[in-house]
Amino acid sequence: MLFTEENGAYLELIEKNDIYHLFLGGTPFYDGKKPFFKVTLIHPASDIHIRKYSRQTKCRIEETPEIYELYVKPYVDTMRGSRIKWVYNILDHISETENVIYECTDEKNGFIILPDLKWDQKTVSTLYYVAIVHRRDISSLRDLKKEHIPLLLAIKQAALDVIPKKFQEISQDQLKFFIHYHPSYYHFHVHISHIDFDSGDGMDIGRAYLLEDIINQLQTMSDHFSLIQRTFTFFLGKKSDLWLNVFSKIMDTT
Amino acid sequence: MLFTEENGAYLELIEKNDIYHLFLGGTPFYDGKKPFFKVTLIHPASDIHIRKYSRQTKCRIEETPEIYELYVKPYVDTMRGSRIKWVYNILDHISETENVIYECTDEKNGFIILPDLKWDQKTVSTLYYVAIVHRRDISSLRDLKKEHIPLLLAIKQAALDVIPKKFQEISQDQLKFFIHYHPSYYHFHVHISHIDFDSGDGMDIGRAYLLEDIINQLQTMSDHFSLIQRTFTFFLGKKSDLWLNVFSKIMDTT
Repeated sequence: MLFTEENGAYLELIEKNDIYHLFLGGTPFYDGKKPFFKVTLIHPASDIHIRKYSRQTKCRIEETPEIYELYVKPYVDTMRGSRIKWVYNILDHISETENVIYECTDEKNGFIILPDLKWDQKTVSTLYYVAIVHRRDISSLRDLKKEHIPLLLAIKQAALDVIPKKFQEISQDQLKFFIHYHPSYYHFHVHISHIDFDSGDGMDIGRAYLLEDIINQLQTMSDHFSLIQRTFTFFLGKKSDLWLNVFSKIMDTT
Repeated sequence: MLFTEENGAYLELIEKNDIYHLFLGGTPFYDGKKPFFKVTLIHPASDIHIRKYSRQTKCRIEETPEIYELYVKPYVDTMRGSRIKWVYNILDHISETENVIYECTDEKNGFIILPDLKWDQKTVSTLYYVAIVHRRDISSLRDLKKEHIPLLLAIKQAALDVIPKKFQEISQDQLKFFIHYHPSYYHFHVHISHIDFDSGDGMDIGRAYLLEDIINQLQTMSDHFSLIQRTFTFFLGKKSDLWLNVFSKIMDTT
């Protein structure tokens, strides 16, 4: 579907998945051949969507192990199970099977790599994959221990092997690997994107961690430490679910 | 100095420091009272400036301790001494003394907090300070050891105490603390900004570290580790000095 203006500006629907629409557009003043902008349309949008993308006050949260255990983990637990059925559908080969570019079926160190829905699967400079682990006992970064280092290294190696073979325009040293904390869904996954891809605050400190930095911290930690025992500092929007359901309540009482 | 257009758009010179100029501007279509954009003009600009701000290919660098010792440290050493005389001038109270908002003169744990030149010293939502340590033996993040934890904590505490007292519009939980690796100058300093301030890639993983994450890594590290022994992963522009003088040479030979 193509929308055009009299002056030559255009907007083309590239992909539609349920309520999510991806458009690419351009103007003749720039370069007719290459798209100049990308538009994501969510329609119809829920209240949660609107809150997520609204301008909002943020605050710095220092999530200690105690706060996590007492207040955050109970919230995280409610966000698992049926709330992430779509993830299990991918892992069980029920949906998006045709998009998978790599799978290791190992129970402990297995994972699936497939394109993120944000990506048009064509424009290499915005390349965006996600690696989703098969094991279901890691909700997020918080649950990582030294024993998970081989899994993390295997994800990186597989992506380095597979992606540049699939797209000759990208080299191994143009991939970046990162993990969100808090993530947008509580089943452990790693983001893999082109080094030039700028997702706004999705790459910011206080929201994202380099995979390599997490591996490094696990490697250099004293043996009795794991990430469940550290304090995580992040910047949280006051319209986010996590603020409304968890931190707003703690902050009010202390 | 004020520049205005017939349609009411304006640009006002707010600050000039040598070749660096800061303008604030606005249009009547937005809100006549609040500036709508900020313009930084570097004039005359050197080749290094032009390269720094040019669009450039980037690559992922994994700087091992061995690469640092052999290739990077010799480069870092050439960037110290007279190259950062302006930093020593601040520490020795020769320049910018009137802007200092906090100083601890302790030889080991002392530092100075003053506004970053990027900031207009008025707009709280773009508030930007920098804490520069007095000791001259820490070139960057790389040199941090467990023994520096008290210094890092003292910087954070001082900023949390002083800045919200100076500006009532900002609260303690709206400050963010971060460190660049590689930094733009090799004398250890910590960036302190409003949580909403977006400096483009200056907040990105692979370029910036949360102060809290660095403190945490030092705290949880095995006793025999320090940051000099870890691998740092970062994304380096191929027009940067560090690429041209160091990594381009290593990459070509391996």
